[in-house]
Amino acid sequence: MRMSDIIAKKRDNIELSKEEIEFFVNGFTNDEIPDYQVASLLMAIYFNDMTSEELATLTMAMVNSGDTIDLSAVEGVKVDKHSTGGVGDTTTLVLAPLVAALDIPVAKMSGRGLGHTGGTLDKLEAIDGFNIEIDEEDFIKLVNEHKVAVIGQSGNLTPADKKLYALRDVTATVNSIPLIASSIMSKKIAAGADAIVLDVKYGDGAFMKTVEDAERLAKSMVDIGRNVGRQTMAIISSMQEPLGYAIGNSLEVEEAIDVLRGEGPEDLKEISLVLAAQMTVLAGKAETLDAAKEMLNEVIENGKALEKFKVFIENQGGDPSVVDNADKLPQASKTFEVISDQTGYVEAIGAEGIGIAASMLGAGRAVKEDVIDLAVGIVIHKKVGDKVENGDVLATLYANTDDVEKIKEMVLGHYVIGSSKKEIKLIEKIITD
Amino acid sequence: MRMSDIIAKKRDNIELSKEEIEFFVNGFTNDEIPDYQVASLLMAIYFNDMTSEELATLTMAMVNSGDTIDLSAVEGVKVDKHSTGGVGDTTTLVLAPLVAALDIPVAKMSGRGLGHTGGTLDKLEAIDGFNIEIDEEDFIKLVNEHKVAVIGQSGNLTPADKKLYALRDVTATVNSIPLIASSIMSKKIAAGADAIVLDVKYGDGAFMKTVEDAERLAKSMVDIGRNVGRQTMAIISSMQEPLGYAIGNSLEVEEAIDVLRGEGPEDLKEISLVLAAQMTVLAGKAETLDAAKEMLNEVIENGKALEKFKVFIENQGGDPSVVDNADKLPQASKTFEVISDQTGYVEAIGAEGIGIAASMLGAGRAVKEDVIDLAVGIVIHKKVGDKVENGDVLATLYANTDDVEKIKEMVLGHYVIGSSKKEIKLIEKIITD
Repeated sequence: MRMSDIIAKKRDNIELSKEEIEFFVNGFTNDEIPDYQVASLLMAIYFNDMTSEELATLTMAMVNSGDTIDLSAVEGVKVDKHSTGGVGDTTTLVLAPLVAALDIPVAKMSGRGLGHTGGTLDKLEAIDGFNIEIDEEDFIKLVNEHKVAVIGQSGNLTPADKKLYALRDVTATVNSIPLIASSIMSKKIAAGADAIVLDVKYGDGAFMKTVEDAERLAKSMVDIGRNVGRQTMAIISSMQEPLGYAIGNSLEVEEAIDVLRGEGPEDLKEISLVLAAQMTVLAGKAETLDAAKEMLNEVIENGKALEKFKVFIENQGGDPSVVDNADKLPQASKTFEVISDQTGYVEAIGAEGIGIAASMLGAGRAVKEDVIDLAVGIVIHKKVGDKVENGDVLATLYANTDDVEKIKEMVLGHYVIGSSKKEIKLIEKIITD
Repeated sequence: MRMSDIIAKKRDNIELSKEEIEFFVNGFTNDEIPDYQVASLLMAIYFNDMTSEELATLTMAMVNSGDTIDLSAVEGVKVDKHSTGGVGDTTTLVLAPLVAALDIPVAKMSGRGLGHTGGTLDKLEAIDGFNIEIDEEDFIKLVNEHKVAVIGQSGNLTPADKKLYALRDVTATVNSIPLIASSIMSKKIAAGADAIVLDVKYGDGAFMKTVEDAERLAKSMVDIGRNVGRQTMAIISSMQEPLGYAIGNSLEVEEAIDVLRGEGPEDLKEISLVLAAQMTVLAGKAETLDAAKEMLNEVIENGKALEKFKVFIENQGGDPSVVDNADKLPQASKTFEVISDQTGYVEAIGAEGIGIAASMLGAGRAVKEDVIDLAVGIVIHKKVGDKVENGDVLATLYANTDDVEKIKEMVLGHYVIGSSKKEIKLIEKIITD
């Protein structure tokens, strides 16, 4: 088998065989096929897309290129959730205890944040004493007994995907729907998911700029899931503003607690509830999304969800009293207000820009080695559709420095204020297969 | 300027600027831009083509990537000819003395053969004493005084093209019309051509499989020529059988002499005359192709063309008596006949296969270091459209070995004999701008 023939086939829009896809994934992972041949193939894929069969094979070849997590000792259907990258996206912190409260196992392997999106591990570490370095046996025991535990990523998962991503990054092939779809799905499957729930964001601040592209990506992933025996559901949601109000580690923990208590921002609540309902259905605990939502609302109302969060924290060495007393979370020493210099309606909020501003305050990492400040971040007060008067407070910065002028300007600059009252349709579509 | 942005632009079908094209050609030539980024760009070019502006810029960037030959000391318009690769293509040997007989300067820099196509230098060296290693000053003096001289390639011409070709070869991007067009034109321009005549072959044995593709390629090159100030004409010709009868170095010299004498195979004569007519028009010696043909026929009939060949040979140290006595060319020690085992009409002759068979006899090189046997080769006796009886001689092998069974089988295998009498339209189209 020659790599140049495989490239030529894809170039000519002929479906690649299982053997051909495995040949290139394995050869690339083992450094036997040079970068330039893979770069050429990736561009051909960019233009000619991949068939369902090809996508399933590529995904599994990437899964099999490295270690996989064996969660077979965990009882029940392990449903994992993935978001294509949001700002202020606190849904994982809400979902984990929420679905666990319905006895759905949440055995989550999480990563740290990089760039302007936060990582679940960082957020959890804002809770005093919370330990994500538990050994695998304890992890499984915790999930079986209490239905929820989170650990840090370990092992060499999907090395083929990592290598491919690095190459795509410098060859203008990141933005290819089949390549994004197989990359996301391979990581979830390698981490042990039996079923998968996806939140595919669209809009200026998201990877997918249009609803149509987001839908293509979501359908691609649902299709892969079906073909590799991992039932998958997805939602298409808007990223025309940050989700919720809080961006920053402790600030988001506090917001997650609010939602679990039945309070908190409407948009975060809505997305959390829909994703949790999909997880509930996939876990076999409800027949329909509506039935699932009812069950989920019940555990929020009767306090079981919040109680589960406390147990979860305690199990991993954290101080559960933060749930009732958010002041125990790391607190920034200073706050600064971002004041509107216009009157009108908020028409959009550049989510990515707000995320970067929060990173600059110390809430995120530019490179893996950066130490982040768990206390700092941004809370926005005005969201899209809100009326704003000149002089109103748009957002508050939580900082441990006085040097925030530029960041204030950035936040202000990412508020688009105009004359029309817009309404965001938060969830554009629900895809249940 | 970032290479990944250049790739993304071409991927999105946005025209690249002069600066961007020069940036990538120079960066690649100097090893500053990695192969994988260029591979990705090449595939994007494969899909999205290049505009006239882009092609002209790419061509000249490749010309300027290395040395160029300065023929300004040669008086008159220097017209060069290029064929996209044929088997038994002896046209250069015919054209050089033929147009020189009309006082058109032929200052030709030629290469050696590689693979199944012969090189002009090898063919000339079949003439005893012929020396292609003359210094530049003598070369120019010869052209000015006698209008024709041929030397071997020297200097580092179009290194960018060489490096790009090597990469295209392993990334399934050889067969891209804009990349082929700019590659050919850059080499001709770097070798000092003021004007260019092209023979673009199509058919099974050629690079371009269809007339349409051949025409696209030809038009692309004529377009480049116009945009970079090198007037260019082209013909589209069939490669459904080898050109002429002879394949092999001395055999082709003998055939060229036949044509210059007004004899020889019709197809070789026809193509030579049309190409020579285009050269004559481009050199400004005739107004129309028809007028040029008349002049060319005259120098064949009155013996001036053949006489010019003798002078050309003598000037470069060769024995001109071969022209009147072909036995003085290297002779193979043995001949073998390829006998038809069918009755019918020749419907096609796999030119590439016959070329490879001749190479296997020793007429061509597999790698640059191979020593070739100037005496050996193949003469075909039956061409497309000819009636063949079982037992007829299809071809004669000229060999210096007895081990020819496989080669005989190969030649036989490349004859397609059937029931329909086909006629090849040798020259499909003449493109004069």
